[in-house]
Amino acid sequence: MISSTKNEQVKSVIELKKKAKARNEAGLFVVEGIRMVTELPKDRTEKLYVSESFLRDTENEKVLSGCPGYEIVTDAVFSAMSDTQTPQGVLALVRQYRYGIDDLLKSKGAAHLMILENLQDPGNLGTILRAGEGAGITGLIMSRDTVDIYNPKVIRSTMGSVFRVPFFYTDDILETAGELKERGIHLFAAHLAGKNNYEQEDYTGNIGFLIGNEGNGLTGALSGMADTWVKIPMSGKVESLNAAVAASILMFETARQRRASAL
Amino acid sequence: MISSTKNEQVKSVIELKKKAKARNEAGLFVVEGIRMVTELPKDRTEKLYVSESFLRDTENEKVLSGCPGYEIVTDAVFSAMSDTQTPQGVLALVRQYRYGIDDLLKSKGAAHLMILENLQDPGNLGTILRAGEGAGITGLIMSRDTVDIYNPKVIRSTMGSVFRVPFFYTDDILETAGELKERGIHLFAAHLAGKNNYEQEDYTGNIGFLIGNEGNGLTGALSGMADTWVKIPMSGKVESLNAAVAASILMFETARQRRASAL
Repeated sequence: MISSTKNEQVKSVIELKKKAKARNEAGLFVVEGIRMVTELPKDRTEKLYVSESFLRDTENEKVLSGCPGYEIVTDAVFSAMSDTQTPQGVLALVRQYRYGIDDLLKSKGAAHLMILENLQDPGNLGTILRAGEGAGITGLIMSRDTVDIYNPKVIRSTMGSVFRVPFFYTDDILETAGELKERGIHLFAAHLAGKNNYEQEDYTGNIGFLIGNEGNGLTGALSGMADTWVKIPMSGKVESLNAAVAASILMFETARQRRASAL
Repeated sequence: MISSTKNEQVKSVIELKKKAKARNEAGLFVVEGIRMVTELPKDRTEKLYVSESFLRDTENEKVLSGCPGYEIVTDAVFSAMSDTQTPQGVLALVRQYRYGIDDLLKSKGAAHLMILENLQDPGNLGTILRAGEGAGITGLIMSRDTVDIYNPKVIRSTMGSVFRVPFFYTDDILETAGELKERGIHLFAAHLAGKNNYEQEDYTGNIGFLIGNEGNGLTGALSGMADTWVKIPMSGKVESLNAAVAASILMFETARQRRASAL
């Protein structure tokens, strides 16, 4: 049992929670809480840590079933490793995913991609992934300057979708957008200067939506790569929508059209 | 000029930022930042505070035009009053709104109400108000146990919509739902057990959507008041959507149907 926060493993977990650089060097990320640990793919689990009081509760045995063994830490040490105020007493180190563009295009149905440029809010990214899984997206692509998807706040707000939706970061979002177009993906950008309202376009084919930064929207270079600009018309004095809201409206409109065309 | 954080006015502003009880007793709320102060209705402004360096920047003069005078505080005092890390140097005390049900039903077009039960996340509430104004909602009703709309985090995430969309809290959400039904509002609840998908219902008449708590959804009592349950169908293993996302999908589907029926 680990009883000191000076333990090397404990220090390493804390580093992995705090720093994207440490996560990327180790190729790992941290997943915390009963629900998230229950949903995580067991074959990706590198290491599991549980607190003494977690282990004492026999209700928790099923959370650990199928897991490859665990390390016990004192409740005080677990608190130091956790980033929640009321830790549930279980966290896992999980191997990062290595998806490529083919993983995002292999689904049987039409492609439905989300391409995010420089999104900064962890809650927005996690919410887009969670809503995206619900809307049936086939993958997520992020520019390198987007917030780290393995940030614990993102992981938590995905509610497990991070384990199921393929995604990758690209160093050159313009090149990736070009490759998607060559592969027959029609790219739409949500843009105030869009000619048509979003519901007037057809999303039943192979498509991708470009979503920009919370404060500044899409760069001119990336929105210039879009085949079609679409407008989300707005009442009142609202100039823009929260990025996760705008993305969700487009993703669920796509799902709606695909349900209608499948009838 | 106020140069001490022990000044009674400064202590009062800090209380108003922190405590819903203080806000409700004073009938005031705090609005911070250049953009929000620019948007706020001048006739509701009770008092304005600016920092020394805010005042020194001549660019800022237009922010104060039309305002009824202001109190100057040192930069250090302003930092203590602010709840942001890089304060913009301007905040206002604003009188709370006193809307009633008639204010939410007086628009020329069909009613489009959002009825929130026990929402707890300030970001979700602010996002619903902002997206709601964009979707053309005519008002927002909240159960008494919903997070305080005058919480500074809510105010900030409304991006000014809080000044334009009428809203009120009700002590008895069931009674209010009953009154809405009597007044010809068709109530929809987003519910996993809904028979039809949400896009199969007609939202062009007088309607309201019931939205529940983030973790627990709607209570049985309130969802039982709905005329119709609707389902947002979901792919993958997603069990529920973020409350602001679910609300936005329904609000923008309503806006879409109303645009189509107006053609």
